[in-house]
Amino acid sequence: MNGAESLVRTARAAGIELCFANPGTTELPLVAALDREPGIRAVLGLFEGVCTGAADGYARMLGRPALTLLHLGPGFANGIANLHNARRARSAVVNLIGDHATWHLPYDAPLTSDIVSLASPVSAWVRTSRSAATLAGDFADAVAAASRPPGQVATLIAPSDCQWDPADGPARPRPRESLPRPEAGRVAATARRLRESRSPALLLGLGALREAGLSAAARVAAATGAALLCEVFPVHVDRGVGRPRVEKLPYFPEQAQERLARCDLLVLAGARSPVAFFGYPGVASRLAPESAEQLLATPDEDAAGALADLADALEAPARAPAPAPAPLPAPPTGALTPASLGAVLARLQPEGAIVVDEGATSGLVYFGAAEAAPPHSYLALTGGAIGQGLPCATGAALACPQRKVISLQADGSGLYTLQALWTQAREQLDVVTLICANRSYRILQLELARAGIAEPGAKARALTDLSHPAIDWTALARGFGVPATRVQTVEELTRALRNALDESGPCLIEVML
Amino acid sequence: MNGAESLVRTARAAGIELCFANPGTTELPLVAALDREPGIRAVLGLFEGVCTGAADGYARMLGRPALTLLHLGPGFANGIANLHNARRARSAVVNLIGDHATWHLPYDAPLTSDIVSLASPVSAWVRTSRSAATLAGDFADAVAAASRPPGQVATLIAPSDCQWDPADGPARPRPRESLPRPEAGRVAATARRLRESRSPALLLGLGALREAGLSAAARVAAATGAALLCEVFPVHVDRGVGRPRVEKLPYFPEQAQERLARCDLLVLAGARSPVAFFGYPGVASRLAPESAEQLLATPDEDAAGALADLADALEAPARAPAPAPAPLPAPPTGALTPASLGAVLARLQPEGAIVVDEGATSGLVYFGAAEAAPPHSYLALTGGAIGQGLPCATGAALACPQRKVISLQADGSGLYTLQALWTQAREQLDVVTLICANRSYRILQLELARAGIAEPGAKARALTDLSHPAIDWTALARGFGVPATRVQTVEELTRALRNALDESGPCLIEVML
Repeated sequence: MNGAESLVRTARAAGIELCFANPGTTELPLVAALDREPGIRAVLGLFEGVCTGAADGYARMLGRPALTLLHLGPGFANGIANLHNARRARSAVVNLIGDHATWHLPYDAPLTSDIVSLASPVSAWVRTSRSAATLAGDFADAVAAASRPPGQVATLIAPSDCQWDPADGPARPRPRESLPRPEAGRVAATARRLRESRSPALLLGLGALREAGLSAAARVAAATGAALLCEVFPVHVDRGVGRPRVEKLPYFPEQAQERLARCDLLVLAGARSPVAFFGYPGVASRLAPESAEQLLATPDEDAAGALADLADALEAPARAPAPAPAPLPAPPTGALTPASLGAVLARLQPEGAIVVDEGATSGLVYFGAAEAAPPHSYLALTGGAIGQGLPCATGAALACPQRKVISLQADGSGLYTLQALWTQAREQLDVVTLICANRSYRILQLELARAGIAEPGAKARALTDLSHPAIDWTALARGFGVPATRVQTVEELTRALRNALDESGPCLIEVML
Repeated sequence: MNGAESLVRTARAAGIELCFANPGTTELPLVAALDREPGIRAVLGLFEGVCTGAADGYARMLGRPALTLLHLGPGFANGIANLHNARRARSAVVNLIGDHATWHLPYDAPLTSDIVSLASPVSAWVRTSRSAATLAGDFADAVAAASRPPGQVATLIAPSDCQWDPADGPARPRPRESLPRPEAGRVAATARRLRESRSPALLLGLGALREAGLSAAARVAAATGAALLCEVFPVHVDRGVGRPRVEKLPYFPEQAQERLARCDLLVLAGARSPVAFFGYPGVASRLAPESAEQLLATPDEDAAGALADLADALEAPARAPAPAPAPLPAPPTGALTPASLGAVLARLQPEGAIVVDEGATSGLVYFGAAEAAPPHSYLALTGGAIGQGLPCATGAALACPQRKVISLQADGSGLYTLQALWTQAREQLDVVTLICANRSYRILQLELARAGIAEPGAKARALTDLSHPAIDWTALARGFGVPATRVQTVEELTRALRNALDESGPCLIEVML
């Protein structure tokens, strides 16, 4: 058995079932070892950002480590942006990166680079294996690091001689940690402050936005009248009819500050203290006054459990009353706008759908409309590194093959990682992509206006404009083997989306906004 | 005047005329400042790897700094792979990266990351500006660092408050260094060894592969019988009819070692000691014995000048006799193969063409065939980070609008940065892209065979196969606004390429191999 085989067997024993791969020469022993391990599926991405974004989506849906296999520093670098999102999402991702043989590294061959320096900003754990004998144990440690709740990015660099040299055998999976309960006293202190508050809110993150956490949060709300809030870009929200309603904070800091100013208490449950997405002159970075904040559970703690304890401490009812049914938006007609797109999607999306929202400005309206949709999962762009949507949808579909995945995708952002469509076609994934084609970087046009540049000059206009030449997403999709159609009206969208949802397999609808 | 304006004026004064840009919110003051500077053109890339690869191509053609404008850590990260190539090419590139306002950084907003750690592996110089007052001076230093001959990658991080806060004014351009002559004695020592050698070779790199360097090298060859060699992936070679012929070292180390074993002396002129691209079990990393090597000029020294001095020391003729005209390959017929593709291109390419070769296995034959082509420039994938060809061709076309650019592009590699096609369409660049469509990662299939895996299993086959589903490059190109056609025979290719070369503006030919 060589090092690569010992690693792959260790991976299987640790519960890894799938590898998002874009390997090269330095990873071939691992490819050969995967070939001999029937328990691990290998999914090829044509670009590393597809692999890492898919790993993020897979880990978000399953809550266990996703594995990537990438090619040295430059290949890994192509995956960094989506690992940045995964890091912010606290997704459990193990990156396995091949490197030159240890004895070849000193010669500084063309592909040599400082992989540790590249990996550190997006990895909670980085290690370089030193020999074939330690490779399996190193990998077991990587899986353990990635599994550390709620999840982390762990990166193992495997020089190729550590893969092909003889090894003893696989390593045993490391014990899994569980999410720690918050320190004693926080529940009582939070209950006390909630009792005194006139207008409290809970800011929910991670586990607090999943089924159990939300039920507990709803009990707290029933006992205290607290509003339920989440960040503008949540990791994974269980939502839809019958589930507690959560309000997203606005994106722009002035509006978020205004919303939070209506609360005299903000309880943080699995969420960090909210901050502005960007700094603006004259605008505070913090969105809520420190004095109004009360920490119940950090993202590294069991927010759902803490909320249940809090509800008990508040003597809340064992079950919150079901929320009053939200009305589905009226069937829109006429022109396609972000609002009519959001309404059509909310009306048609099936029960159990996974909605991956990188709709940017075009997706803002959808979230509210989907309150009345059948129960579904909602995944957002956690780290602001655009090009996350199509890969994340790909990974979510691989994680949950029985569920329909809907990718609500801004056109500008989608172009960063459009190669994901090919993986969707190859694996025949059940993903419907809705391209929000406003043919611009609309958010930057808004930001220019915010910066007081009411009439941008030719260059500023050109740098935010995607209409010249027009990008034909239906051609791009077909180029990658995904059937596609373009819609110009609400009626066309309704028909196309209904058809797409009735079929299985990938398809793309370019929605002309 | 704010910091951004002071920087942009400094850039113009330092000779910057073009900016390869993919900005976001943290770069908007720079965008606004560019709007007010008519002397700098802004070219939008839909993906940062397009910007950095184009900067590399631009810098290789013009020999002066190319500027990129990128969005924080994740945006920059998308450009790292092609900066890795630029670093290996010793291209002069200045990266300007926006970041959060200095006072916003401590809040760890979603897009915050350690940009210095990301940038260091690909940058010879990295600095973070601390105030608007220093931003212009910092940028002047960045340009000076990038300009340090033969060229370097320099990265300046500009927090957004340093852009929008008031500044004093632009900074003066720093003095330019010139390429140092090699230390005294090397020319004499080299001449001595050359006189004693029976089968010498010169390994040429950087300036030694350009017109003046090659003329000097040819004089040395005339006096000593030395063979003229270059690395398998040279930065920029002036070649074609009438120019000294240079032989590329083979890619695989055994073949390169065999070739070099035929020399008893290897003079390094602007090239590093040759090493294997990858390490393989039982194969030495060095391609030539150390004892056979003689350093004339490092890549940081004036190799062309040293070669001229060497020719003088050898009392070589003032001008080498013109090389015997190489015969153009016979017009091929029938099936499309890498050989027939190379022959057709060599026969049709016009004088002054710039050929960007990321053809991988499909491009190997072309280099030899093109010896007899009209004078042209040849640019290769210097760092092995694939996805360089289409962006590099884009930058070369912007640098040299009067010259025809031909992009010889492997299909697998091209898919990493296909968004470059849109920039070619938007700027109406004179680029003909030839996609070598073998629908596989052929090099990996060869490497699997080399690794003794004669019959790869299903997974190894799948991870090197791009035929399922087939990728339609003509659809992808049209999606980005580039006219495209597919050819199945030599005759179709000949017709399509002739038409493409007669027209101006971008087009793509998918060559079915």
